[in-house]
Amino acid sequence: MTQSLNNIHAVILAGGSGTRFWPLSRETCPKQMLQIVGEDTLIRQTIKRINGFVSPENIWIVTTEDKAQDIKFHVDSLGPLAKKIQFIKEPLGRNTAPAIGLAAIHLSRFSPQSIMVVMPSDHAIPDHEKFLNDLKLAIEGAKEDYLVTFGVKPNRPETGYGYIKIDNDPRVKLNGLHKVECFAEKPTIEKAKTYLSDGNYFWNSGIFVWKTSRILSEIEKHLPSLYQTLKEIESILFEPHKLNKPSIPQSLRARGLSEPEAAIRNPQLLTLYSNLESISIDYGIMERSADVLMVPATFQWSDLGSWTALDEVIEKDDSGNILKGNTIDIGSQNSIVFSGERLVATIGLKDMVVVDTPDATLVTTKDRVQEVRKIVDTLRQNGREEHLLHKTVERPWGSYTVLEKGEGYKIKRVALNPGAKLSLQLHRKRSEHWVVVSGVAKVTRDGETFLVHTNESTYIPVNTKHRLENPGEVPLQIIEVQNGDYVEEDDIERFDDIYGRT
Amino acid sequence: MTQSLNNIHAVILAGGSGTRFWPLSRETCPKQMLQIVGEDTLIRQTIKRINGFVSPENIWIVTTEDKAQDIKFHVDSLGPLAKKIQFIKEPLGRNTAPAIGLAAIHLSRFSPQSIMVVMPSDHAIPDHEKFLNDLKLAIEGAKEDYLVTFGVKPNRPETGYGYIKIDNDPRVKLNGLHKVECFAEKPTIEKAKTYLSDGNYFWNSGIFVWKTSRILSEIEKHLPSLYQTLKEIESILFEPHKLNKPSIPQSLRARGLSEPEAAIRNPQLLTLYSNLESISIDYGIMERSADVLMVPATFQWSDLGSWTALDEVIEKDDSGNILKGNTIDIGSQNSIVFSGERLVATIGLKDMVVVDTPDATLVTTKDRVQEVRKIVDTLRQNGREEHLLHKTVERPWGSYTVLEKGEGYKIKRVALNPGAKLSLQLHRKRSEHWVVVSGVAKVTRDGETFLVHTNESTYIPVNTKHRLENPGEVPLQIIEVQNGDYVEEDDIERFDDIYGRT
Repeated sequence: MTQSLNNIHAVILAGGSGTRFWPLSRETCPKQMLQIVGEDTLIRQTIKRINGFVSPENIWIVTTEDKAQDIKFHVDSLGPLAKKIQFIKEPLGRNTAPAIGLAAIHLSRFSPQSIMVVMPSDHAIPDHEKFLNDLKLAIEGAKEDYLVTFGVKPNRPETGYGYIKIDNDPRVKLNGLHKVECFAEKPTIEKAKTYLSDGNYFWNSGIFVWKTSRILSEIEKHLPSLYQTLKEIESILFEPHKLNKPSIPQSLRARGLSEPEAAIRNPQLLTLYSNLESISIDYGIMERSADVLMVPATFQWSDLGSWTALDEVIEKDDSGNILKGNTIDIGSQNSIVFSGERLVATIGLKDMVVVDTPDATLVTTKDRVQEVRKIVDTLRQNGREEHLLHKTVERPWGSYTVLEKGEGYKIKRVALNPGAKLSLQLHRKRSEHWVVVSGVAKVTRDGETFLVHTNESTYIPVNTKHRLENPGEVPLQIIEVQNGDYVEEDDIERFDDIYGRT
Repeated sequence: MTQSLNNIHAVILAGGSGTRFWPLSRETCPKQMLQIVGEDTLIRQTIKRINGFVSPENIWIVTTEDKAQDIKFHVDSLGPLAKKIQFIKEPLGRNTAPAIGLAAIHLSRFSPQSIMVVMPSDHAIPDHEKFLNDLKLAIEGAKEDYLVTFGVKPNRPETGYGYIKIDNDPRVKLNGLHKVECFAEKPTIEKAKTYLSDGNYFWNSGIFVWKTSRILSEIEKHLPSLYQTLKEIESILFEPHKLNKPSIPQSLRARGLSEPEAAIRNPQLLTLYSNLESISIDYGIMERSADVLMVPATFQWSDLGSWTALDEVIEKDDSGNILKGNTIDIGSQNSIVFSGERLVATIGLKDMVVVDTPDATLVTTKDRVQEVRKIVDTLRQNGREEHLLHKTVERPWGSYTVLEKGEGYKIKRVALNPGAKLSLQLHRKRSEHWVVVSGVAKVTRDGETFLVHTNESTYIPVNTKHRLENPGEVPLQIIEVQNGDYVEEDDIERFDDIYGRT
């Protein structure tokens, strides 16, 4: 072994929007941020899975600019380790090949000898230990300059996954690693049955291990246009002095943006990225490369591609149902009912999926569950909000829940963690009445600071600088009644924020 | 014609709980109070159907003590005519024979020569004119001392209705009226098919016309025990001086109850009623009487016995669906989706019913829709609230909506109609913060009276007499944040109420 574990870096892909888990997933709360299986959300499980095997400084999360802040706040709740995790922000999503390429140019600069472990942030892998054992084997292959992937032994003729076919070529010296003969797209049910009986076909897990240098040379060979763009992006990000014009426009400098933040907002970068072909690493590289090995996974795995994937990772009751939350069922079979606090009563369902959230409910047959994308498209086209936001929005300081929005008013329950502090802010178009229903609030209003106890209230007039804090050791809850002709979230000016949102 | 229309009285049966329309119906909002078909709620449509044909003073609503106030407030919105409608309150529900018997002893006292038109309050009859034409025919039969019912010509082999078989006996002289041969219980599908092809079978509509004196003598003959009890009840209600002990216990007198109110709360009455056999007028009288005639109805009719009954009274789209409210559907067939403001998205449903309300959703196959009763039973057994109340509760002054209830607090939106006035009241266990979000509030607090404008707030401490009014000409809306260890509706003491609820 010539490389220490210090050279292993985990690249967690977190750019997915998770439309297929609507209404539980939203644009601001994609699938990776959901706790649909296991003890934590999918992305936090992914981090926990690799943390310790690699040091937190070597964990990189690749996501898009618009999702980065929500994901960062979400990950931050893991505590001190989360502060060390590094974020790579794409200006916009262009599938996995550009995302992995962008990570590779970062790693090639910070750790040229590194080995990358590429992991989706939204898959289910319940057994972390088995995963790490398999990963060690994959790293051995990567050290020998192979591209290594993980194949999952099929237990059913699944048509929702791509397949990997191995051969047992004796040229491959490494114990337990198989030479990949080819990749196969999602098959028909007939083909999937022959794959299952063949024994040499595995599900393509989307987890990859390789040297950073090797993946870059593969991109150069198979996706030369992407490679060219990545080199230009590298210059903008890391060598702005080499460019003809300064990378950071004056307008951005004026807003006090620091170097890397400003670079990512660079309009040149956005243009470059927009022009990239949207292509997956599987299709762009893996299917074309000659040197691909596969580790047969010993761990259980699901890509959680749709609501019906839960059937494979959650234990069903005697009637084949998965019932979660506030549900009452009479005689349903092979159905999934996901509820929260609202009651969902079901009678005689068969092969159905029902998903309930505070503002939207989905009812579909299992065989048409993929069409939920069309529902989301319809909502987007109609300028609705049910695909964007949940009624409860997690923030770094706690959360808020929109209880009702009406003509000229909006009502929120705002929950602040002990010690939490909202930004110093003002609103141009609304005033706010605050009633404390639990805990004690510290309120700053127009320079003056005072405490508001449970069952007391205060008032924030329009155009008045204010700040809300929880100085206590128990959670603080206030009911906020906003009044004004315009009560949207973007009516906010921040002057000081401990979470860096000014 | 020897009797004028002044002798015609309408008896509207409104004791039903409408469990089968849960979650839209609740114990405090039974089926008759729902607007599921047509321009108004079922009971208000029923009143409008008969009003004018009989004078408002001759309209009687029979319901149970626990529902009477809600139904009265609900009916009151019809305006001045509603004030003339008389209520007959049963101590508890005992099916239609006791309810009709109770109405008969009232009518026999106030109008001994009267003819009763007995109408359920929760059926759909879209064409009022045809109904009144058929009713005139029925009244002719009643005048000849027959019991007259309405039969609806079947258009399908329905198994959910009882049937009436007519013969064409020449003894019946009255034009258009048929002698009834027998009544038949809800049939099997095979029997329903033979009934349909036979041509002499009609659906039993549950609408009846007879002389008050005749139905009482029929009850005396066929249900002597009920008759005996009705005579005792008559004594308690109308001749308390004849009884050995005073009808109104001292405890009730002390509470200032007036004579009829006190009588209905008389424990003797409750005991008598509790001991009555729960029996329908069809089974108890109609099937046993020799003198029953039937009017073949020319009007369209449905008893709205379950959610699937909507298929007969609401026009379907090209795929056989009925979609109401905030819905998005992809490719469903022959399904009913009833939503309000929340979004319900459906994909590929077939023969399903989905009903959404702010706190509960029902998803069932059409063929098991009757089992919704079991859901309601489960809720009742588990001490839940989703079968009792809606989140929005109609009151005589407007309505309130529970937006959220949490540990130590409850949040309501309270809407007051112009000129409306809540009772002068106090709460022992909670304080209230009021924020006006539209309109102007007149607040009385501890003797002091002041106005609170939009975007202003006020505070009602615990144990403080207060009153809320809308002095303006536009609706008033306030957000009420209740604080206290106990925030239930029964923590209220009323001192003065223009709706008679003290």
